[in-house]
Amino acid sequence: MSKKAHHPSHSVVSRERITDQDELGLERLIFFSDAVFAIAITLLALDLRLPSGGGSPSNAQLLAQLLEIWPKYLAYLVSFLAIGTFWLGHHRRFRFIRRYDRGLLTFNLLFLMVIAFIPFPTSVISESGNRTATIFYALTMILGGLMLAALWWHASWHHRLTDPGLDARQARRQFVPMLLTVALFVMSIGLAFLNESLARFSWLLVVPISRFGQRG
Amino acid sequence: MSKKAHHPSHSVVSRERITDQDELGLERLIFFSDAVFAIAITLLALDLRLPSGGGSPSNAQLLAQLLEIWPKYLAYLVSFLAIGTFWLGHHRRFRFIRRYDRGLLTFNLLFLMVIAFIPFPTSVISESGNRTATIFYALTMILGGLMLAALWWHASWHHRLTDPGLDARQARRQFVPMLLTVALFVMSIGLAFLNESLARFSWLLVVPISRFGQRG
Amino acid sequence: MSKKAHHPSHSVVSRERITDQDELGLERLIFFSDAVFAIAITLLALDLRLPSGGGSPSNAQLLAQLLEIWPKYLAYLVSFLAIGTFWLGHHRRFRFIRRYDRGLLTFNLLFLMVIAFIPFPTSVISESGNRTATIFYALTMILGGLMLAALWWHASWHHRLTDPGLDARQARRQFVPMLLTVALFVMSIGLAFLNESLARFSWLLVVPISRFGQRG
Amino acid sequence: MSKKAHHPSHSVVSRERITDQDELGLERLIFFSDAVFAIAITLLALDLRLPSGGGSPSNAQLLAQLLEIWPKYLAYLVSFLAIGTFWLGHHRRFRFIRRYDRGLLTFNLLFLMVIAFIPFPTSVISESGNRTATIFYALTMILGGLMLAALWWHASWHHRLTDPGLDARQARRQFVPMLLTVALFVMSIGLAFLNESLARFSWLLVVPISRFGQRG
Repeated sequence: MSKKAHHPSHSVVSRERITDQDELGLERLIFFSDAVFAIAITLLALDLRLPSGGGSPSNAQLLAQLLEIWPKYLAYLVSFLAIGTFWLGHHRRFRFIRRYDRGLLTFNLLFLMVIAFIPFPTSVISESGNRTATIFYALTMILGGLMLAALWWHASWHHRLTDPGLDARQARRQFVPMLLTVALFVMSIGLAFLNESLARFSWLLVVPISRFGQRG
Repeated sequence: MSKKAHHPSHSVVSRERITDQDELGLERLIFFSDAVFAIAITLLALDLRLPSGGGSPSNAQLLAQLLEIWPKYLAYLVSFLAIGTFWLGHHRRFRFIRRYDRGLLTFNLLFLMVIAFIPFPTSVISESGNRTATIFYALTMILGGLMLAALWWHASWHHRLTDPGLDARQARRQFVPMLLTVALFVMSIGLAFLNESLARFSWLLVVPISRFGQRG
Repeated sequence: MSKKAHHPSHSVVSRERITDQDELGLERLIFFSDAVFAIAITLLALDLRLPSGGGSPSNAQLLAQLLEIWPKYLAYLVSFLAIGTFWLGHHRRFRFIRRYDRGLLTFNLLFLMVIAFIPFPTSVISESGNRTATIFYALTMILGGLMLAALWWHASWHHRLTDPGLDARQARRQFVPMLLTVALFVMSIGLAFLNESLARFSWLLVVPISRFGQRG
Repeated sequence: MSKKAHHPSHSVVSRERITDQDELGLERLIFFSDAVFAIAITLLALDLRLPSGGGSPSNAQLLAQLLEIWPKYLAYLVSFLAIGTFWLGHHRRFRFIRRYDRGLLTFNLLFLMVIAFIPFPTSVISESGNRTATIFYALTMILGGLMLAALWWHASWHHRLTDPGLDARQARRQFVPMLLTVALFVMSIGLAFLNESLARFSWLLVVPISRFGQRG
């Protein structure tokens, strides 16, 4: 009964009410985040465009154009998986979060700022696959991973906002996939100096890596 | 009481809580999907543009321009119906889904990747109505249908994630409209070698076909 | 207890469950619609663009450019109010809707197809304020009004999907603002042959008109 | 029990039902607003574009291009924080709102019209950092702050729509951060006549200012 914490500052309004409102507030926060994720992930497709040529192409010409832009498809795929993985990570951590405070709102907003930014490096890398583009992309992902880690650190530190039933080891284990993801992208920056393509293909490891430490 | 399954891995947190959270998690999944559907369907309109000509056109010129882009209206209509039909299919299947697991999250994400992709082939086909564009469009729809079928197969296999009250025949029957839709688009690829317009008009059959096996 | 209708076709699943799911289904429908409204209304702003000129303008030049595009601001304002009014109309009618069927899903989808289309005539009219643009815009709004009327007719006919407590007079009264809105836009087409600006300013009447018959 | 107000005009439908529907209606309003916020905040990234140059740039050229557009990053950051702050302000005020009426719907719609408009002045200021652009941006923010203040005034006046437990002092205190924000942007217009950069950097004060009067 007394499990749920209250914002002590709003004591004028009856406690029960506020608790309901707190849950509504947390729901709004999650909802708003989901909407930003959904929009960012769908906007990725706006970058899929044929090279604007004059006139109506023949069947063979159009086929050539469709095949020619394969780096755009790859960029779409990688960024879709990346935003999807971030969404899953957000999803999984918020399963254990029961309350919110201004710090959580702020960290969440900064994290979303990175998510909404992702279509830009995606666009850059689909235009030009060189080393600068590769590093720019990797840096964005590193920032995203660090923001999510900061959010979780803020929320889980001494059970500040998490479920009291969540044990400390489980809370710490949540950092593993995030830090592995950050490490992967840091490493890919090194790889980019050897071979840009290799660096970019290494990013597909984000999918298996994001599972580490989640089960059992 | 024991009808609902739990994620056994999170046994530290009290059972009741987790069940609530599971429902919240499923809601977030559905919500996120709906948002992607809604954005993809609304972005279709971004492709409606007049040919950029200089100066201010006369009444007759503007009318001619508005009529001239009829393939864009047709593409908008067909893709709106297609995404709408996919949404209805998703909607209908998730009525029977009670739980989620990582597999469902992954299949759902892949399915959404196709949905968010649809504005691109729509844009291609509204620019150029040739055979290549027609086949490209049909292939996208086939992929979408197969993804939804894979999602449902994953969810309904041995009642993995579905309501226990859903009988096996009813579960299997859900495949009928999806496979008919896939068959329709496969067939339209054949038609495209005879007549592109015929192929594209055949797509309007997606609306009646998607109803098969739904009632009674 | 027996107030709520069921989809008789799904009798295998326990009744209670299905009723819950029906409410969830109706929520998803409303949610999906709201998302389409929100996206369409926000995309209106994408059309606000300065004429792309070379170099960096002076303070006076930029001010002139910002003032020069006043028809775009007007179009933004009118379409924002129009989509907002349609949203309010949708909102108000769905307060009385308790169930859904395939007909409602279809009418709703067709209605949303018009809503998502609105940014296009808005863009046309903000580029060129001539008679053709004015009529094209008005026709879109007429179609939207008729679709919403069809949706409400489908839902409220013999209490098919509405609350049993809604009396017939109240149900019929809901048609008044929709039909007045349609009449306004029909009339504005006539006005457009006299004076395009007059026709467009008449649209601002949509705000007071949409209130008719709502209270008391 | 009698705490919640009803729309007296809909007395035909049973009271209990309408109350539930009222809450649903308020939820839809909040949801719709959140979606508009989320879309507007994510659309900001659409403005991040490299200067379209021919051919594939070298590593050094691309790096130069990425650095060259720093005013776009700054504009993205400032507008993300501004929309985020408006969202928090909306969020915080709606925690105390229990009912809605047509006035609230209208003020909310006008407020959202400003929010959805923000990407435009953001785009203007990221193209050209001169005084006119600075003032145009500040005026938009002032309008947003005034709209939110009007909304709160409408809702909290004599507890029209707010929780009865909210005391008058607390209600009035909600105006403080909004009016300080408005004052900040008014002041920045004055600063813009001295130094445009100074004016724009002063906007970062919006983050600490928005906290005033919120706690204790």
